[in-house]
Amino acid sequence: MPDVPLPFARAEYSDRLAKVRRAMNDAGVEVLFTCDPSNMAWLTGYDGWSFYVHQGVIVGPSGDPVFWGRSMDANGALRTCYMAPEDIVGYSDDFVMSTQRHAMQDLARVLGERGWNDKALGVEMENYYYSARAHAVLSAAHGGVLVDATALVNWQRAIKSPGELAFMRRAAQIVENMHAAILENIRPGRRKNELVAEILRTGMWGGEDEEGRFGGDYPAIMPLLPTGMDATAAHLTWDDKPMETGAGTFFEIAGCYRRYHVPLCRTVYLGDPPVDMLVAEEAVLEGIADGIEAARAGNTAGDVARAFYSVLEKRGISRQGRCGYPIGISYPPDWGERTYSIRPSDETKLAPNMTFHFMPALWMDSWGLEITETLRIAEDGPAEPLADYPRKLFVKG
Amino acid sequence: MPDVPLPFARAEYSDRLAKVRRAMNDAGVEVLFTCDPSNMAWLTGYDGWSFYVHQGVIVGPSGDPVFWGRSMDANGALRTCYMAPEDIVGYSDDFVMSTQRHAMQDLARVLGERGWNDKALGVEMENYYYSARAHAVLSAAHGGVLVDATALVNWQRAIKSPGELAFMRRAAQIVENMHAAILENIRPGRRKNELVAEILRTGMWGGEDEEGRFGGDYPAIMPLLPTGMDATAAHLTWDDKPMETGAGTFFEIAGCYRRYHVPLCRTVYLGDPPVDMLVAEEAVLEGIADGIEAARAGNTAGDVARAFYSVLEKRGISRQGRCGYPIGISYPPDWGERTYSIRPSDETKLAPNMTFHFMPALWMDSWGLEITETLRIAEDGPAEPLADYPRKLFVKG
Repeated sequence: MPDVPLPFARAEYSDRLAKVRRAMNDAGVEVLFTCDPSNMAWLTGYDGWSFYVHQGVIVGPSGDPVFWGRSMDANGALRTCYMAPEDIVGYSDDFVMSTQRHAMQDLARVLGERGWNDKALGVEMENYYYSARAHAVLSAAHGGVLVDATALVNWQRAIKSPGELAFMRRAAQIVENMHAAILENIRPGRRKNELVAEILRTGMWGGEDEEGRFGGDYPAIMPLLPTGMDATAAHLTWDDKPMETGAGTFFEIAGCYRRYHVPLCRTVYLGDPPVDMLVAEEAVLEGIADGIEAARAGNTAGDVARAFYSVLEKRGISRQGRCGYPIGISYPPDWGERTYSIRPSDETKLAPNMTFHFMPALWMDSWGLEITETLRIAEDGPAEPLADYPRKLFVKG
Repeated sequence: MPDVPLPFARAEYSDRLAKVRRAMNDAGVEVLFTCDPSNMAWLTGYDGWSFYVHQGVIVGPSGDPVFWGRSMDANGALRTCYMAPEDIVGYSDDFVMSTQRHAMQDLARVLGERGWNDKALGVEMENYYYSARAHAVLSAAHGGVLVDATALVNWQRAIKSPGELAFMRRAAQIVENMHAAILENIRPGRRKNELVAEILRTGMWGGEDEEGRFGGDYPAIMPLLPTGMDATAAHLTWDDKPMETGAGTFFEIAGCYRRYHVPLCRTVYLGDPPVDMLVAEEAVLEGIADGIEAARAGNTAGDVARAFYSVLEKRGISRQGRCGYPIGISYPPDWGERTYSIRPSDETKLAPNMTFHFMPALWMDSWGLEITETLRIAEDGPAEPLADYPRKLFVKG
């Protein structure tokens, strides 16, 4: 075995693989091709910014998973995965961004070499890294049936191991530090990009615990920090204009440690917030408290959403949609796990050590307010917020 | 029209739309659905980190483009696009990460409302943001034929306008500053994540020109900075280990200004570089010089690659694959334009104001060396490197 500094013990990877094989069996999938970079990393340790070309991990009926990707990234797999070199397969650069040939032809060849060409092959139909063209080419080249295995691996990631939770606690400390940097640096006249410079710097700097100093990793979503009317939209990034008095800015950010995320959002108002924002703050805080109370093992994702929404309704605030999603290991463009959602209609049962971003943000007609928590479902009682940061609307003069 | 601070003059967007309509006509596409976030931004000004849900810009036979996306992102479109509100269409949150319904059903409904349900619809079969499932659902719901329009818009972006080049010159200044920060901060014992903290901080901080200070934007790829054996792989990011003497680290980074990128790679060796690395440096520098000489209007992308490869061959260094790609506006996960490639087989004719990352990196058995330039094809003579930074292997004691 190569001498690779894996994030987790070798046994944990075996457990994960066994869980995935059980799910494959239940879904009638004989061979799985997962190209979601989060799934790839979770199964094998693979870590690299190479997901912009076709690549994936193949889980066959037995044996170790197989990394398949661009040749130069097979080198990266040799440096980051636990598998032996014979299970790390690279394709030539001729396949990259070519209109003449497609990497999925090579994947079919590799499947054939291993005697898997007639197997029921699970593919992630709804994934950023499995394009419509990739599916068309693979469908034509693979001898067996293709089965939609979207989120099959993602679901196995829902309950976090002690090792994963330790990583997330580090990510939580990082996001606390990032918010502290915001409060220290935000002021009227400060250009927003300079604030981002401090946020990212702090996030990469990392933190410190009983084992010593640790560094930060890049979050799967860049900081979102719209101000005033821009904060009525959910996903704007930043510009280089000076911050002004008389407007609120929400900060949707995550700390990240070795690809594990803990998002935490807070809002800072420069000046005197309008009364309706203060009223909303009170409602959101009560809604979060009730949501955390409802977020317990045995309850459902829907129970959490309903607890939150019933506070909003009582207080006459209208909101719709999701108010949370599972969280853990991730790569761009999204830090969510893309399985269950915190919304009234979702009846996913919560279990200990599930982790989700409880995200009851309000995007109103003239401002936005984001106060959120990343929660861990406890063995007993209400969920545990992973970060420890004052839960309120911050006001700076 | 909404009062939106567009990156470019309204007339430039009209020109772009007209170019796209001509290309649609040539390709037999009556209505185009482009979900590549770079294409969306280039056509409409839309800017937000919302590409992790289904969205796109629809170009019909006449009139302004239509933004279609999640409701909360339609708010973002109102803040960043030039189109009137009736051409900004949002779908409800029920469609997000749902297994019951798919956003493409809503897209088909919107196309139908505009009388476009029977039109030949161009879709980007090979794009991160057009999943296999999206294509299956849209194929079933759309009345007309679906045509592969991958890169149709991307190709229209190849030649940069004066406004785009002005943005790229700012991005070039930013990447120069980032490399200066690397040289200032790298030293044995410095943890790598701390180096990244300074790189990102400097990138966001921005620069200054005759119009004043300007801020940086997030690059579409996070810094790649592998050391020693890790640098034999192309796309590793970073860890929190201290840097050590006796190894080289390449820095693959880009400056970014309002989504326009200028990548520039350099390598820094701590200690005394091995002789074969110095020999390779000389070859790469000669190869770059010859490549720049060949990179001129009327020549082809292949000419540039051949000029570079003939130096390597002459000097007995073996390398294969692409050594460059077009560059400009972009969003994660890739900063390339994904049209032509700088490789011997590519016969794309170069024209003035085409811009590409000339990327003749070497990933060898025990080290990696990246010295690269972003080039602009000049009206006459050899290409112009956009950044002005010493072109060499840096050695620090």
